[in-house]
Amino acid sequence: MVSLYLSGINQLYMLKVEHIGIAVKDLSASVPLFEKLLNTNCYKQETVMTEQVNTAFFQKGTTKIELLESTAPDGVIARYIDRKGEGVHHIAFEVEDIEAEIERLKAEGFVLINDQPKKGADNKLVAFLHPKTTNSVLIELCMEIK
Amino acid sequence: MVSLYLSGINQLYMLKVEHIGIAVKDLSASVPLFEKLLNTNCYKQETVMTEQVNTAFFQKGTTKIELLESTAPDGVIARYIDRKGEGVHHIAFEVEDIEAEIERLKAEGFVLINDQPKKGADNKLVAFLHPKTTNSVLIELCMEIK
Repeated sequence: MVSLYLSGINQLYMLKVEHIGIAVKDLSASVPLFEKLLNTNCYKQETVMTEQVNTAFFQKGTTKIELLESTAPDGVIARYIDRKGEGVHHIAFEVEDIEAEIERLKAEGFVLINDQPKKGADNKLVAFLHPKTTNSVLIELCMEIK
Repeated sequence: MVSLYLSGINQLYMLKVEHIGIAVKDLSASVPLFEKLLNTNCYKQETVMTEQVNTAFFQKGTTKIELLESTAPDGVIARYIDRKGEGVHHIAFEVEDIEAEIERLKAEGFVLINDQPKKGADNKLVAFLHPKTTNSVLIELCMEIK
């Protein structure tokens, strides 16, 4: 924690871009595509039943690329692709204390989709901000479950 | 370079997510919004006349967030916002050797918008991949000009 304090209070909350979520129709096509694109192997696939998504992860530097495929025709990712097509779905920032960060952002006027963090993929607690308050960018806060 | 070689040839090309580009209508509104969101100050604004964009940069970990505002009603960012609205415009990966990476990706079947790198913002040489070959994600390759 020393280095965080030394580098300033503003580093305490939003630490880094933890991952970028990309909505795809078909993981079986997109995993090999992104393996070629990123020139690295997919290192993990995981289904999150509560979110109705299959996920696939790639590591680049300190950031992950997370592909998202819907497990159901009316799942959140399927509905997103119906509206907007495939593409970047969200940006996830790693936070030090997700409950404190939710409170900070609410106090700043941002609208949270999740007032309370919920269990997400990759052993994380997550909460999303409503894109209407963030220039249409869906922002996820995420914190490793210890 | 030793650590790159030790960690495998696949790390040599796409090194990390250098920045995420976000199209916005009005930097004068979006810069203070993202300062509150990211809890850090915008550290640089720069106009790239050849691209008809004003840019604003924020640092989070090893990744930058780059806001993009069009300088002209028919500029590429203005036209993007007309079609798709504000939001994530591209993901930029730092590469070790941009010309070698262009050749590698062409050989893998990706379509490059720029066959030759061009001068971009932030003292970089850049080249874009056509999103039709990347699940509708606009991918930028970028390399620091030394």
